[in-house]
Amino acid sequence: MTRFLRRGSEKSGQTPGTAVYVGDAKSHDVTVERFVYNAENVTHETAVPVTEAVPQDGAVLWLNVDGVHDVPRIEQLGRVFGLHPLAVEDIVHTGQRPKVDEYDRHVFLVLRMLQWNDAAGEIDDEQVSLAVGNGWLLSFQERAGDVFDPIRSRLTSNRGQVRQLGADYLAYVLVDAIVDHYFAVLETLGERIEALGERISADVDGETMASIRQLKKELLFMRKSVWPLREVISSLQRDHGEWIGEATVPYLRDLYDHTIQIIDTVETYRDMVSGLMDLHMSTMSQRMNEVMKVLTIIATIFIPLSFVAGVYGMNFVHMPELTWRYGYFGALGVMLAVAVGMLAYFKRKKWL
Amino acid sequence: MTRFLRRGSEKSGQTPGTAVYVGDAKSHDVTVERFVYNAENVTHETAVPVTEAVPQDGAVLWLNVDGVHDVPRIEQLGRVFGLHPLAVEDIVHTGQRPKVDEYDRHVFLVLRMLQWNDAAGEIDDEQVSLAVGNGWLLSFQERAGDVFDPIRSRLTSNRGQVRQLGADYLAYVLVDAIVDHYFAVLETLGERIEALGERISADVDGETMASIRQLKKELLFMRKSVWPLREVISSLQRDHGEWIGEATVPYLRDLYDHTIQIIDTVETYRDMVSGLMDLHMSTMSQRMNEVMKVLTIIATIFIPLSFVAGVYGMNFVHMPELTWRYGYFGALGVMLAVAVGMLAYFKRKKWL
Amino acid sequence: MTRFLRRGSEKSGQTPGTAVYVGDAKSHDVTVERFVYNAENVTHETAVPVTEAVPQDGAVLWLNVDGVHDVPRIEQLGRVFGLHPLAVEDIVHTGQRPKVDEYDRHVFLVLRMLQWNDAAGEIDDEQVSLAVGNGWLLSFQERAGDVFDPIRSRLTSNRGQVRQLGADYLAYVLVDAIVDHYFAVLETLGERIEALGERISADVDGETMASIRQLKKELLFMRKSVWPLREVISSLQRDHGEWIGEATVPYLRDLYDHTIQIIDTVETYRDMVSGLMDLHMSTMSQRMNEVMKVLTIIATIFIPLSFVAGVYGMNFVHMPELTWRYGYFGALGVMLAVAVGMLAYFKRKKWL
Amino acid sequence: MTRFLRRGSEKSGQTPGTAVYVGDAKSHDVTVERFVYNAENVTHETAVPVTEAVPQDGAVLWLNVDGVHDVPRIEQLGRVFGLHPLAVEDIVHTGQRPKVDEYDRHVFLVLRMLQWNDAAGEIDDEQVSLAVGNGWLLSFQERAGDVFDPIRSRLTSNRGQVRQLGADYLAYVLVDAIVDHYFAVLETLGERIEALGERISADVDGETMASIRQLKKELLFMRKSVWPLREVISSLQRDHGEWIGEATVPYLRDLYDHTIQIIDTVETYRDMVSGLMDLHMSTMSQRMNEVMKVLTIIATIFIPLSFVAGVYGMNFVHMPELTWRYGYFGALGVMLAVAVGMLAYFKRKKWL
Amino acid sequence: MTRFLRRGSEKSGQTPGTAVYVGDAKSHDVTVERFVYNAENVTHETAVPVTEAVPQDGAVLWLNVDGVHDVPRIEQLGRVFGLHPLAVEDIVHTGQRPKVDEYDRHVFLVLRMLQWNDAAGEIDDEQVSLAVGNGWLLSFQERAGDVFDPIRSRLTSNRGQVRQLGADYLAYVLVDAIVDHYFAVLETLGERIEALGERISADVDGETMASIRQLKKELLFMRKSVWPLREVISSLQRDHGEWIGEATVPYLRDLYDHTIQIIDTVETYRDMVSGLMDLHMSTMSQRMNEVMKVLTIIATIFIPLSFVAGVYGMNFVHMPELTWRYGYFGALGVMLAVAVGMLAYFKRKKWL
Repeated sequence: MTRFLRRGSEKSGQTPGTAVYVGDAKSHDVTVERFVYNAENVTHETAVPVTEAVPQDGAVLWLNVDGVHDVPRIEQLGRVFGLHPLAVEDIVHTGQRPKVDEYDRHVFLVLRMLQWNDAAGEIDDEQVSLAVGNGWLLSFQERAGDVFDPIRSRLTSNRGQVRQLGADYLAYVLVDAIVDHYFAVLETLGERIEALGERISADVDGETMASIRQLKKELLFMRKSVWPLREVISSLQRDHGEWIGEATVPYLRDLYDHTIQIIDTVETYRDMVSGLMDLHMSTMSQRMNEVMKVLTIIATIFIPLSFVAGVYGMNFVHMPELTWRYGYFGALGVMLAVAVGMLAYFKRKKWL
Repeated sequence: MTRFLRRGSEKSGQTPGTAVYVGDAKSHDVTVERFVYNAENVTHETAVPVTEAVPQDGAVLWLNVDGVHDVPRIEQLGRVFGLHPLAVEDIVHTGQRPKVDEYDRHVFLVLRMLQWNDAAGEIDDEQVSLAVGNGWLLSFQERAGDVFDPIRSRLTSNRGQVRQLGADYLAYVLVDAIVDHYFAVLETLGERIEALGERISADVDGETMASIRQLKKELLFMRKSVWPLREVISSLQRDHGEWIGEATVPYLRDLYDHTIQIIDTVETYRDMVSGLMDLHMSTMSQRMNEVMKVLTIIATIFIPLSFVAGVYGMNFVHMPELTWRYGYFGALGVMLAVAVGMLAYFKRKKWL
Repeated sequence: MTRFLRRGSEKSGQTPGTAVYVGDAKSHDVTVERFVYNAENVTHETAVPVTEAVPQDGAVLWLNVDGVHDVPRIEQLGRVFGLHPLAVEDIVHTGQRPKVDEYDRHVFLVLRMLQWNDAAGEIDDEQVSLAVGNGWLLSFQERAGDVFDPIRSRLTSNRGQVRQLGADYLAYVLVDAIVDHYFAVLETLGERIEALGERISADVDGETMASIRQLKKELLFMRKSVWPLREVISSLQRDHGEWIGEATVPYLRDLYDHTIQIIDTVETYRDMVSGLMDLHMSTMSQRMNEVMKVLTIIATIFIPLSFVAGVYGMNFVHMPELTWRYGYFGALGVMLAVAVGMLAYFKRKKWL
Repeated sequence: MTRFLRRGSEKSGQTPGTAVYVGDAKSHDVTVERFVYNAENVTHETAVPVTEAVPQDGAVLWLNVDGVHDVPRIEQLGRVFGLHPLAVEDIVHTGQRPKVDEYDRHVFLVLRMLQWNDAAGEIDDEQVSLAVGNGWLLSFQERAGDVFDPIRSRLTSNRGQVRQLGADYLAYVLVDAIVDHYFAVLETLGERIEALGERISADVDGETMASIRQLKKELLFMRKSVWPLREVISSLQRDHGEWIGEATVPYLRDLYDHTIQIIDTVETYRDMVSGLMDLHMSTMSQRMNEVMKVLTIIATIFIPLSFVAGVYGMNFVHMPELTWRYGYFGALGVMLAVAVGMLAYFKRKKWL
Repeated sequence: MTRFLRRGSEKSGQTPGTAVYVGDAKSHDVTVERFVYNAENVTHETAVPVTEAVPQDGAVLWLNVDGVHDVPRIEQLGRVFGLHPLAVEDIVHTGQRPKVDEYDRHVFLVLRMLQWNDAAGEIDDEQVSLAVGNGWLLSFQERAGDVFDPIRSRLTSNRGQVRQLGADYLAYVLVDAIVDHYFAVLETLGERIEALGERISADVDGETMASIRQLKKELLFMRKSVWPLREVISSLQRDHGEWIGEATVPYLRDLYDHTIQIIDTVETYRDMVSGLMDLHMSTMSQRMNEVMKVLTIIATIFIPLSFVAGVYGMNFVHMPELTWRYGYFGALGVMLAVAVGMLAYFKRKKWL
């Protein structure tokens, strides 16, 4: 349930704008990584002290912080770069809905980075917060490990346009990397839906409903992550002209198309999963029908036969048939006739 | 049902703008509490006579009234502060939908304060009305006990910004406290959904449907409370610039994000509860299937055997098998063969 | 079905704007009631001849007509007050959707007055048409009896503001009285839903589905009445400034809030009624399960026992057990053991 | 299925704007009917040669064409009146969605004329295309027979306003006649829903599902016809001021109200039909329950009795009860007691 | 699942705007086909080298590329015609959602060309990308074979307007050809729905659910293709005036109507398919009911009879009936009476 609502009750009643860490303290060491680059040069350091992290002229500064549970350090960074107190609160209060807020000195984005956790069979999510100002970009993650490695290598090797353009383009490529990873998660979900469909058709096992429920939950979760994301990117595209350069705008349009495609797919998968539910119910009904037919066939054939046998098992003194020479074989013949008649009836009813 | 519609028929046909108390008279004593504060000083009194409650220069006045069934006293307060008659009517007529109305001399808000009542297993709600004017704020609650204690302590101890800013910011922190409490209610509901899901999977008990219905009702109720709240805050953010200072606006945006998050979660929970319904129906079907299978297996094995026994229980004079040396054991052998054949059939059908 | 669509085929092909009565001629006498009032004086007459019903200077004229099947008389009134032919057509053609039309010389409203008919267990509805011009208001009802008595008494006794303000405010109080009555109808429906929910849980009777269907129908009907009403009031509030004075506008906002609350409640009730449907189906399934379990338990216990009895009822000459001293009691013992084993199995399966 | 999609594959790949007849050639003779009228005079001819059909000064020309399969003749008319090639294509390509297109020299409407076909138990539909220009109106129908007779008689006898006003008003009355006929169709559907509801409650017959499906299909079809119609009329009302005179506008508003009412009713009926589905499923379940109860009662009463009989039918040599004086009557007594106990149990369970 | 989401994980982390082929490499030879035409002349070549494909003055150039897996060749073409890198990326990255992007030097469309694959019983789709610039149009398909042959023949034989108008009109006719083919696919789906409905009513076979699921999937897929298509055409109609001449606009409106009609039909079919689901479930229930009735009738008739037989099969020494002269016939008579009574009861219950 935590993924659907993470908001500690310890938070209630706090002064708004107070930074209080809410989360599972996923990483124990806070590490700060620094890129300073322009078209000509690039420096890449890890384990930078927060006090040395200052914006620089003529170059783009990217500061990536892994771990947000060390609230004082985050607040110090916030003072250095002039982050709004509400932005700092959102950074450490993980569990935010994706959103974009424009403040006087920077634009602030919250995103959810999704990754498929194969061991747990569910989606792992992590809050990534981005603050983009004039010549600098801060990114905050809950723990080490992310989807940004290709971007790091592009920065150091100067592939693509990223070194030529500003912090806004860097923000775009980070968001694009996160969104691209959504497709990987969707692919996994799609395969699971397909596999489940085949398992249901082939066989009933007690875990079908559990699997359907799990898929439904993951899709609900994807949906909760991706619908606000669409708004974020749409709003970036429309309004935040000050922080986003002209050159970045067509890329945002492309990104917007991707989110729409993800939404489409999530909704389609939801439709397909509720189709699985129908299939499951129908399969169960069909099995029940089969069971009932077997019972009915056996019972309706043998009950009349047993009755005939019962009749001639009565002990009346005067029962003429009992003394007939071929009485017994006659009785067996009657039984055979009844059974054959019944079978013919079921054949006609297509129960056999 | 009262929580869904509270509107006494005694009210029908009254002159509009007439204040008539509608409610359960939850508190028997009306108590008035007064805060007067600015950045330097604060006074806090309880049990203030209504006649002494007047707006003050150079300081913010917060008057909190617990109990709204004493209509004349509310009307007197309304005259002192120039409340519109429709606002006074709404204060005493508890059961209003959340809304915001701008009048000439004040802005008026109705909110629903929700709290989880663990004893009854349902949500308690209470109407909180706020009237915000130039330098003063009136709050009206149905009964004693609220979620404002942290704010009271912040006012007296001068923590946060609340003493520095005006009545509009106070209104914001009150609304924020109420909205923050919605999360606590949602957390409880989320836990109940989770627990119910596990109980259904494990076992069928007769109360499942009742629990599902109860959860559905609570979520319907949350929904009825929170959708209009979103409109209220969105409308405050957009239009009521006169009564809301610039400094408060980003906080309203934050508040708006919270309501959206609550709505998202409520809708997600509704989806999950209807998933529980499906799970319940599917579990019941599966149990039925199991019951039927047991019946079918037992019946289809023994009915043919009983028939064989019945045949040799017949009293025909001429039944050659009866006098055979191993007739009896032969019959038992036939029965055993039939039974084993049946069991093999069920094994192949995967019923065993 | 008439309440959902009342539109005689006799009407098809008529010249548009032709007044043709469509309805059940609910009242046999058309009665005209006249109020003429200002802040100082009021006169109230009943059974006024149509020819004397003319607008008056310096006073507000309210003409209330009970019965609209006398088309010529309505048309005569229309000519006197300059009603548009389409308005006259709508007055006599009962079965209109609530709406507001602004014409050159007056604004025209159609409303549905709902009352709970306890005898029939359904909602009675009646079309009320209002035409508001400069200093006059005409109201048309299908039959005698309405919800306007408190307004009549307020007019004669000069309570509230109604005598001080114009025809527009009178229109507002009439609409308000009608809308207020919707709450009474909703209260009745809410109680019925609650009662039905308890009846279903307690017991299955054949009328459950009929009751659910009836409630669904009434809610569909409420919905059809109240959604267009919201549009009517919203449109009055926004556009029809000419016929509606400034002083009346905040009251219209209040009225709008009421309609929203009614819509909310209707939608909530619809959700609850479909929850009842689920409850009903689940209760039926559970009962079925119980029936099947009883059958299965009895059958699976006794069928093997009967088989044992059948075996020893066979008439083979050579059956050693038959001559044993304690054969009979041994057989009884075996039966007992089988029965106890079965019962233990059912106990473990939680069927008992 | 043709009513849902009529678009011959022979059409694929044609030059856009090419007129190709798609339909069932419902009428074998194309007949052209001509009205020329102003306030003073009217001439009405049938079987007019297309070449003589030209617009006239100082009078309104209405040309009504029954049968659109004779493509060259329609194209000739199109050239005379300056119809756009796409309009001509739409006229002969029956199966269009209702729409309105404004071209340089005329406005073009496509409507669906619905009539209840009692023999087939379904709705007959026919495409009616209207082209309205300056002083002329062309109407095209697929076959003879329509709902315009009252308009013809109004034109010749000069009843109503139609002779006083222009071609735009004539267009309005034609559309109004078509829309009015929708109500007749809805009345029939409403009666069928009501009747079906009663039939389901009373009795199960194999045709219930077929009837429900048929009703659903007809309502889907109504819906497909009437939703775009709403857009057509709404768009006429808003934008096409050039071709629609001021005097006609209030009538269009009235027409718009009618379409809204039809939509409301269609949606309400759809809700009611899905209620019938629920009723049908619930009725079937209830019947199943009844069948199962009968089986269970009979089986659970007699199976133990038969067991007792079986016990005393065993052939053990030493069975003391068999030789008791009142053993037989004792056994019968035991059986009676078991039966009565079972019945009491079922009574308590309310199965009887 | 690939049709719902085709986005190789190999793509993740790539520089945006990098062209990487994603697809099944459906065609092994990339072929380029060239049309150069104006009102007077036309040349048509196949197998044109990419280097010779340059825009030409005074004539329209149409370059159609079959096969997009040869990325360098596509990139070369992109450089010659000034395609935006994102457009080139979209061309080779098949699996795009239909969309329209306006770039500085051209407008870019992505469409999905659908064809019914009768062998697989599903819809084949292929991405068609169009880039329209000043005097030239590039079209890219995944493999050879398309729906453009009638357009090719119109170009060479100078039928219709296509030679008279520019590249924008050519784009329109290409899109129109693709959209027209959607109707053919819908016709096939419609026939399948109809056929399946009849098969379900007539008979239950195990493949019903599979067929329903297949139909549902195809309709989901149609829907995913056609909803964005509507947006594309609507956006072309509204905004892209620079690249689309005035003369083409009414044709786009027509095209838009077609997409709306397709959407309508898809939604209607979805409703009908979920109706089939209901029909299937209801048919299965009815069959179950029938099976249960047969079992119940047989069992409830014979179980009491067998009991009677059992009673007189008991071996009590003192059983007076056994020695009666007509005891046996009396017993048979009682049995007959019971059976007849039961049958009468079932008759009255309408089970027979």
